[in-house]
Amino acid sequence: MHCSDPYTTTLSFGPDGREVEVGLCMDITPAEPFRFDCGAAMETITLAYQTHGQLNAEKSNAILLCHGLTGDQYLTGPHPVTGKPGWWEDIVGPGCVFDTDRYFLITSNVMGGCMGSTGPKSTNPATGKPYGITFPVVTIGDMVRAQKLLVEALGIRQLFAVIGGSMGGMLALDWAVRYPDALYACVPLCTAARHSPQNIAFHEIGRQAVMADPGWQEGHYIERGRFPAKGLAVARMTAHVTYLSQIALQEKFGRRLQNKLALGYGFDIDFAVESYLHHQGKSFIERFDPNAYLYITRAMDYFDLERDFGGHLSRAFLGTSIRYCVISFTSDWLFPTEESRRLVRALNAVAANVSFAEIETDKGHDAFLLDVPAMHATLRGFLDGAAKAKGIL
Amino acid sequence: MHCSDPYTTTLSFGPDGREVEVGLCMDITPAEPFRFDCGAAMETITLAYQTHGQLNAEKSNAILLCHGLTGDQYLTGPHPVTGKPGWWEDIVGPGCVFDTDRYFLITSNVMGGCMGSTGPKSTNPATGKPYGITFPVVTIGDMVRAQKLLVEALGIRQLFAVIGGSMGGMLALDWAVRYPDALYACVPLCTAARHSPQNIAFHEIGRQAVMADPGWQEGHYIERGRFPAKGLAVARMTAHVTYLSQIALQEKFGRRLQNKLALGYGFDIDFAVESYLHHQGKSFIERFDPNAYLYITRAMDYFDLERDFGGHLSRAFLGTSIRYCVISFTSDWLFPTEESRRLVRALNAVAANVSFAEIETDKGHDAFLLDVPAMHATLRGFLDGAAKAKGIL
Repeated sequence: MHCSDPYTTTLSFGPDGREVEVGLCMDITPAEPFRFDCGAAMETITLAYQTHGQLNAEKSNAILLCHGLTGDQYLTGPHPVTGKPGWWEDIVGPGCVFDTDRYFLITSNVMGGCMGSTGPKSTNPATGKPYGITFPVVTIGDMVRAQKLLVEALGIRQLFAVIGGSMGGMLALDWAVRYPDALYACVPLCTAARHSPQNIAFHEIGRQAVMADPGWQEGHYIERGRFPAKGLAVARMTAHVTYLSQIALQEKFGRRLQNKLALGYGFDIDFAVESYLHHQGKSFIERFDPNAYLYITRAMDYFDLERDFGGHLSRAFLGTSIRYCVISFTSDWLFPTEESRRLVRALNAVAANVSFAEIETDKGHDAFLLDVPAMHATLRGFLDGAAKAKGIL
Repeated sequence: MHCSDPYTTTLSFGPDGREVEVGLCMDITPAEPFRFDCGAAMETITLAYQTHGQLNAEKSNAILLCHGLTGDQYLTGPHPVTGKPGWWEDIVGPGCVFDTDRYFLITSNVMGGCMGSTGPKSTNPATGKPYGITFPVVTIGDMVRAQKLLVEALGIRQLFAVIGGSMGGMLALDWAVRYPDALYACVPLCTAARHSPQNIAFHEIGRQAVMADPGWQEGHYIERGRFPAKGLAVARMTAHVTYLSQIALQEKFGRRLQNKLALGYGFDIDFAVESYLHHQGKSFIERFDPNAYLYITRAMDYFDLERDFGGHLSRAFLGTSIRYCVISFTSDWLFPTEESRRLVRALNAVAANVSFAEIETDKGHDAFLLDVPAMHATLRGFLDGAAKAKGIL
């Protein structure tokens, strides 16, 4: 394996294609070409990443934090495209849940993403043009195998923990199954061992919204100077509803009108919840690549550990010595607690070391990104116990 | 009020604009112009309707059945556009739940619809062109006031019952509040006294999908020979997911592949649930008017009996002598049982005659259109009891 020194690069974002510097990247050329599950291969892949804290002398204190569908390596901010804080910024730092005095944190934009890692927006060296829709369909397994190369490039043989919520939880599970000796602990939050048909349905709606937009140009919008902004916004709006709970929407917006005293009797925005969705759609198109959205949703749809192990999820974990902490949220209807229970039952069936916390919250699926003290306490306690057991000071 | 004799008419449907005869219509010219809640007025409105059974001599046995969002007057089929059975066909007939030997059934396409009643597809007499997006924004109240004119035109002073599911339930409730002497019994199924922010959000996504399609042409697709087929299909797909339950999707489709043995590693249909959604989208564009979809979803969003009565839902029903039977379904997450409970609490608070049935089913919101014996038994029993109390043989 050959790896480039870390470098920073610029990428274009949004319908107007403005250029933004996106931070650290590394080019990795494995001994054998990187082979995707779909059969395609690449000589060299690029991974964009961020680290926090210091790797200790034993290289035993590294935690890989895996982002969700539209997340990226910006665990802390300011995010170079949006200027906002990173997705777990509030719990990263000295003395925090993710204690940078104790742990070495790694986050990496997934393969197929659009924040610097190899993805559909990248240039195909064979054509000199963006891959677009000719990019190989990626899987959660592809993403994990790419992350493994990065972790090796950083000189780490065994991660202390792999942690992630939602799609990030799928990556954490795939790590545990694929590389059982390469991690000590695993924390899948609000996730599932296989993507449900309802979730596939919502993803397919999002993809159809993108592909229905004439700006999509059969995936070739970059070379043709177009952008499926409206379609991508509809996709994001749809997804966003699934991230919240009924109660959260009721408490946050109810039927409140947006800057008006009476119904408008038209099709402009009347309700605050509509305004919120429009805002979510609008800000998303400024930062995300439409093709990357297709690829990453597809990767989640394809995830199915049960199928990979002949219909017996427990077999995926046979002989595992990893310590697991499975976390779900009561009001999450995208990845309901039942999905976590299935996972815990499978782990119990092979006598794995597993704890399970169903956390009471009205915040829905998004809870993993929000200020939920019980989740933070659970993470902190589990990591502390596991760190002591492993001898990390 | 002047009413035309019933006549049948043809209308065009779908992207190819094929002509279909849609059955009985009546033109109604009230003494005063029909006034919409938004302030607009029309001299004459057209209502398309169907009846079953015979009106008795006392004119006391009429039941008005109110359809859901995309339903119509075709309680029984074959539907002239789709060729399929009507929406409650299975429970209409001699000896059935809706016993045509005993009751006179009326169904009517709502104002703002696209199956013959005045709506955005109708010709504006002032311009000779379709109203399109210049049609007045309709409300549930407008729909009900139009239905009242039809019921009067049929010579009926008091309906035995008004019954409807989903949006039809909103109409039933509006009837009870607006015309407390014009109905004896009221059955709102799987509905709510106000549309929730989550439901507004899903409707807004559907509208944005339609309006994002360049075929929508700012609402003028008919004159311009276009059709927002892809946008309307995405809207329908989104709505359709909300009509089913997680469990129903799991049982019906799971992660089964559609006519393939392995994942396709592409963006064509892989999963059966995707195929199902595509089919739902495709068949919907053949039968529904995109502008009508905007108008009717908006009418549901605007529905809020609580707001209409100063934030006190019970006041809406003060002094009511109507017999109510409120029905909900355990797995309905679009109109969860809690919405029905709120309604029942409000009715109890004014000592109304109300029964409440929460029916155990995995079929989700769509249960009201499906073969759910407990629902049918509840409807049959309530109607029978109310009919006896009213002296209908």
